[in-house]
Amino acid sequence: MDCNDKCARIGVVGCGVVGCGVISMLADKRDFLRERFGFNYKLCFVSDFVRGTLISDDGLDAAAIAHTLERDRSLHAMPGVIKEPMELDRILETVKVDFVCDMTPTNYETGAPSLGILRSALSHGASAVTCSKGGVSKDMAGLKELAAKHGVALRFESSVMSGTPLINMARGPLAGCEITRVRGIVNGTTNYILTQMEAGMDYAAALAEAQRLGYAETDPTGDVEGFDSAVKVVIMAGEFFGRHITIGEVDRTGITKVTPAQIEAARENGRRIKLIASAEMTPQGVKGSVKPTEVEMTDPLAGISGVTNAVTITTDDLGDITIVGPGAGARETAHGIVTNILEVCGCSGN
Amino acid sequence: MDCNDKCARIGVVGCGVVGCGVISMLADKRDFLRERFGFNYKLCFVSDFVRGTLISDDGLDAAAIAHTLERDRSLHAMPGVIKEPMELDRILETVKVDFVCDMTPTNYETGAPSLGILRSALSHGASAVTCSKGGVSKDMAGLKELAAKHGVALRFESSVMSGTPLINMARGPLAGCEITRVRGIVNGTTNYILTQMEAGMDYAAALAEAQRLGYAETDPTGDVEGFDSAVKVVIMAGEFFGRHITIGEVDRTGITKVTPAQIEAARENGRRIKLIASAEMTPQGVKGSVKPTEVEMTDPLAGISGVTNAVTITTDDLGDITIVGPGAGARETAHGIVTNILEVCGCSGN
Repeated sequence: MDCNDKCARIGVVGCGVVGCGVISMLADKRDFLRERFGFNYKLCFVSDFVRGTLISDDGLDAAAIAHTLERDRSLHAMPGVIKEPMELDRILETVKVDFVCDMTPTNYETGAPSLGILRSALSHGASAVTCSKGGVSKDMAGLKELAAKHGVALRFESSVMSGTPLINMARGPLAGCEITRVRGIVNGTTNYILTQMEAGMDYAAALAEAQRLGYAETDPTGDVEGFDSAVKVVIMAGEFFGRHITIGEVDRTGITKVTPAQIEAARENGRRIKLIASAEMTPQGVKGSVKPTEVEMTDPLAGISGVTNAVTITTDDLGDITIVGPGAGARETAHGIVTNILEVCGCSGN
Repeated sequence: MDCNDKCARIGVVGCGVVGCGVISMLADKRDFLRERFGFNYKLCFVSDFVRGTLISDDGLDAAAIAHTLERDRSLHAMPGVIKEPMELDRILETVKVDFVCDMTPTNYETGAPSLGILRSALSHGASAVTCSKGGVSKDMAGLKELAAKHGVALRFESSVMSGTPLINMARGPLAGCEITRVRGIVNGTTNYILTQMEAGMDYAAALAEAQRLGYAETDPTGDVEGFDSAVKVVIMAGEFFGRHITIGEVDRTGITKVTPAQIEAARENGRRIKLIASAEMTPQGVKGSVKPTEVEMTDPLAGISGVTNAVTITTDDLGDITIVGPGAGARETAHGIVTNILEVCGCSGN
């Protein structure tokens, strides 16, 4: 499918904040995307195990759905809604789509439900676009193989750094390069805590502040012990080096033991402590790590404060290229999903 | 032309350091690009007013040409060389190519010779790829129109930030965004001087150091008075906002009057002085400026030291996205040229 006035048939799985963000962005940008790229779409289904399912071969009203989801956090008030949970396989037997967008929450251990959704989509001949880390971190190679077998695409820009273009930058503008290392700050919560500690707070106070602002969860383990960063290392290793490592193979240390004294010592050496996630190609294979690291002030990563994310890609032709941007947010994540659709459809500038 | 085992016919104009870099990269990466993308090419001509011209319908030996250029800075020792200067129009009457790569030096005033080369290439039905700022800053709209008329592409990634993906990032990964402002450090020489002044040197000493290292020219006016940054603002305004402004319309102040006292005062306010180039869409049209600016330390641009470049793109969906990378260098610039060719051919990751 190219971008010349064809019509992308889109289905959405997961209607939480991000799913709603995608539906809302598709509604808001309909005219803009048509004018700029000749891109048209039909929203053929939206489905959520709790919030309900809507299916239409002729296309649903994205604006009305986004409005209802924002108001009710549910689709149950919509005419024609199916309230019982509905498996994607059953939906895809009913309606044909070009894209399934997966915005379900992540379980790193099992990859569910994302892994099953992606497999179902690809097996039915639809391209799969996801922001979930679960599926692609568990079986990227298998999913890519399935996509190739069915002649469709698998895309997951938003799984790392939300919609900030990391994977798409490597696929497109850096496509002619050989990449030897990716290294950066891929978890906003821990970077926020470290930034607050730099400003004088101790760890407990900075964590409490992050929780108060909604950056950290009530159980912050996934962020502060580095699991979230580690699963992103797994994804980066798979995408940039084509190698599967497990989250257990990532050499992982969180930030819970970082002390004000260490931060002060780093500062005296003209450095800052950052939770650095990295995947590096070595003669022994891909080495993945997540650990608090003293970063030189001349390193662009040193200047990344608050919840901002940044990753440096080391290449043969260009040396280090760093990309800085948001690492979370419904609109930001939705951008990554929409951009993946546009890219697969062949839409690009001018 | 897509990337499936077709063969891109390429011609090169300008065989200085960058032109030689492109020829050399094409030779070095022949196998890599074929394996990764199925990309094949023939180098059908290389031409330089001083160094000579070689033409072959069957394809020249890129490695041998690169070797000769590195050794002799000339093609005169190559068999079959045409030593008299040869206009591109005449070459393109002799041999058919898909791409003309323009690596000639820039004259901002006239746009020559780049503007004429790009026009000639496009008029002959070849896509034009350039690292020169001259042609695209003088008449981007006219060149884009000419490209559209002939169904070919105009690309100029390397004209700003050398091969660091600024324009391609906006065209691809950020294609679904509306861009409202671009703002950054696009001249490595002046950023090097300001970094040295931050470390305690005065302007004259820092300039002398930059000249000694080859970052600044003997007549440093183009860099230090902000002309180089301003012409890049013109290009960014044209590319990102589709508006033509002239270099004279850019509100331009160089760094020659920046004093150690100002740098110290900024530091006391927790800021750094950077030469910020910006193009912004306003209700009154595009506003372009180049001026020494106090930047907050929380701004990623504050941490950019030495000759590194960085630009922040402000978007509707993602807020600020910053790209950091080299702003000069033969290999870096050559990357931008090769990447432009790959993109037009439809080559991308996986």
